[in-house]
Amino acid sequence: MTIYMERKNRLLAALADQGIGSALITSPTNVYYLTGFLCNPHERFMGLLLHERQEALFVPLLDKDAALEAGYPADIVTVSDTEDAYELLGSRLPERGGRFGVEMNAVSMAQGEKLRELLPNADFADAEPAIMGLRLKKSEDEIAKVRHAIDIVEKVVDFAASRAVVGMTEIELTAELEYRMRKLGASKPAFESIVLAGARSALPHGKPGEYAIARGDYVLIDIGVVADGYCSDITRTFVMGEASKEQERIYETVLAANMAAIARSKAGVALAELDAAAREVIEAAGYGDYFTHRVGHGFGMDVHESPSLHGANRSIAEPGLLFTIEPGIYVPGVGGVRIEDDVYIGADGTADVLTSYPKALRLLG
Amino acid sequence: MTIYMERKNRLLAALADQGIGSALITSPTNVYYLTGFLCNPHERFMGLLLHERQEALFVPLLDKDAALEAGYPADIVTVSDTEDAYELLGSRLPERGGRFGVEMNAVSMAQGEKLRELLPNADFADAEPAIMGLRLKKSEDEIAKVRHAIDIVEKVVDFAASRAVVGMTEIELTAELEYRMRKLGASKPAFESIVLAGARSALPHGKPGEYAIARGDYVLIDIGVVADGYCSDITRTFVMGEASKEQERIYETVLAANMAAIARSKAGVALAELDAAAREVIEAAGYGDYFTHRVGHGFGMDVHESPSLHGANRSIAEPGLLFTIEPGIYVPGVGGVRIEDDVYIGADGTADVLTSYPKALRLLG
Repeated sequence: MTIYMERKNRLLAALADQGIGSALITSPTNVYYLTGFLCNPHERFMGLLLHERQEALFVPLLDKDAALEAGYPADIVTVSDTEDAYELLGSRLPERGGRFGVEMNAVSMAQGEKLRELLPNADFADAEPAIMGLRLKKSEDEIAKVRHAIDIVEKVVDFAASRAVVGMTEIELTAELEYRMRKLGASKPAFESIVLAGARSALPHGKPGEYAIARGDYVLIDIGVVADGYCSDITRTFVMGEASKEQERIYETVLAANMAAIARSKAGVALAELDAAAREVIEAAGYGDYFTHRVGHGFGMDVHESPSLHGANRSIAEPGLLFTIEPGIYVPGVGGVRIEDDVYIGADGTADVLTSYPKALRLLG
Repeated sequence: MTIYMERKNRLLAALADQGIGSALITSPTNVYYLTGFLCNPHERFMGLLLHERQEALFVPLLDKDAALEAGYPADIVTVSDTEDAYELLGSRLPERGGRFGVEMNAVSMAQGEKLRELLPNADFADAEPAIMGLRLKKSEDEIAKVRHAIDIVEKVVDFAASRAVVGMTEIELTAELEYRMRKLGASKPAFESIVLAGARSALPHGKPGEYAIARGDYVLIDIGVVADGYCSDITRTFVMGEASKEQERIYETVLAANMAAIARSKAGVALAELDAAAREVIEAAGYGDYFTHRVGHGFGMDVHESPSLHGANRSIAEPGLLFTIEPGIYVPGVGGVRIEDDVYIGADGTADVLTSYPKALRLLG
C-alpha cells in the first residue's frame, strides 16, 4: 500500500468518526499530501472528491498531463476554462445528503454558496482538523525531508553571512541568498525572505529594501526553503563590524530566551509553557514590551501549520510535533534580534533541535 | 485628496449603490490598493473596516510599525497572537444590521461563520465586484508602474536567453534569472517562474526541474516580476541550436495566433472574440486540440485579475483594461510554444502592446 492510500484510509476513518461520508479537499497542500499531485491552480478549480467507494481528482485541463504523471489512482476529471466546475462536481457526487466535509479555512464563502446550491440538504462540516491531525505528527520520512530543507537553508545562511559587507543593500543580499537557495536545489523560498539591517531589523515582518548595511548594524536573516515539498525556517541575527554593549545585551537575552524555550520542549508540557519560558527571560531583562509575537509555530509542508505556540495554547506537546522556537526583541529606532530554531519532538518524547547553525553572536565583515 | 481617499470614496459610493453600508476588506492586495499598507498576515487577521463615518485598520501587533509607517489615516487596531480578532472587530462595528460587504472569494467559510455570529441580523453581500470594478480600469499612473515591471522582466528574458546553454538545467536557468530580477529592482517574481525545455515545455504550468537543456529543445520562459506593487507577465519560447521544420511551423502558428488576438484587441469588441481570433488560427493549422487554455487574463496588482479572456466571456473590452494575450500549442512528447504579451486598452480605445521583446523565433547558443 502506498503512503497515499494509507493517508486516505486514515483520513476517511477520521472523517467517519465525525459522521462525514464524503469530502471535497481543495487546498493544494492537502491535495499534494493525499495524492502526490502538486498543483497551484490559481483561480481555477482543483480538488479531490473523497468517498469510501468513489474518488475523483478535478484538475484544470491544462494540468491534466501533470496530474497523470503524478500517478494517483483516481478518476481524473478535467475542467476547461469554459466549463462550470461545480456542474462537473455535481455529476460526480456520491451522495446528496448527510455530512459533507470541506476545509472551512480554505473554501471561500463564494465557493461555499455554490456547494450549498449543489447540496441543499447536506450539512457542511470542517474536514480540515482531520487532515491537519494527520499532518500534525510528522513521520521520520517527513523529518528526513525537513532535515534536507534545513541543510540547504543553513548553507544559505552561512553564505549570506560571508557575503554581507558594508554598503550592500538588503535587496542585494536577498538576491544573492535566494540564488544560492536555487543552486543548492531548493524549489523555492518557503516564504518571502526577510533580510533587514540597522533599525529596520526591528520590523518583525519587514521586507528587504534599499537600505544599505552600515557598520554597527544588526543584520537579521529569516529565511526558509521548500525542497521536496517540505519547508525549513531559520533566523539568525548578526552584527556588522563591532557590536555595542546594548546590542550584545539584547542578543544574549534573546539567545537565553531561545534556549529556555528549547529546554522546556518535550512531550507532556503545555505549549503555552514554551512561550512562557522565553517570555520570562525577556521580561526579566526588561524587554518584555518588545517581544510582540508568539514564541513559535508548527510547520511542515506549509511554513505555518499547527500548533501555534502562544501563551494561551494549553495543548500538550506530543511526539511527532515539528515547530519553530523564535523569540525576538524589537526596539523601535534601535533594531531587533530574533533567533529561530526548528525543533522536533521525537518518538521518545524528547526534543531534537534540527537546526545546528551556531548561535554565538557572529560579527560580520 | 490622496489617491487612497479618492479610491475609498469611489468604493463607498459603489457599495452604497448595492445598499451596502459597511464592509470588511481582508484581501491583502485590496487593503494595499485602498490604504497603501502592504501586509502578508499569513494566518493572522488583517482587515480594513469601512463605513462612511468610521474606519479601522486591523493589523497583527507585530505589523503595527509597518502600518503606522504606511500612513493611512484610520484608527489602527492591533491584534496580538492571544487576542480574538473577531471580538475586537465586534467592538468596532458601526452597525449591526443591513447589508454588510465582504469579499466572498477571499473570506473563508470559517471566517464567514464567525462574521455571521457577530452580525446575526446582517445580510452578507459581495464587496469584491465593487473593488475589482475599480481595479479593473487601470490609470496611466498604474500603467507607468506596469511598464516599469515589464521593463525589468524583458531585460531578464534577454539575460536568460543569452545565458542558456546546452547542459544547463531548468532550475539553474531559473536561479540565474530570478537573481537578475532582484538585481534589477524587482521585489519578487510575480508567480513561480516557468522555465521548461524539450518535451517538458508541453506542460502549460510545469515547474522547472532537473532536466538539462539539449540541442534542438524548445526553451519556454514564462516569467513576471512585481515592482512597486504591480506585476508584469511575459512568455517567450526559444529553440536551442537549430529548429526542426515542425518546431518552426508550431512557432509560426502560435505567433500568428498571438498577433491575430492582438489585432482584435480594442474597445467595443467582446472579449470572447480575442480568444476566438487566436483559436481560429491554431485550429486552421490543425493544432486546435493542443491549445488547452484561454487566450489571456487580466492582471495588475495581482498577476491574475479580471477579465478572463475565454471563449464564453461576452463582456466588452473597454478603455483601461490590462490583460495578457498568450496563445499556446502543447504537443505531448514533442513540446510546447507559448508567446505572451501584455496589452492595455488606452483612453482612445486602441490597444497598446506594452511588451516589446522581439517575437521572431530566436535560436539560442
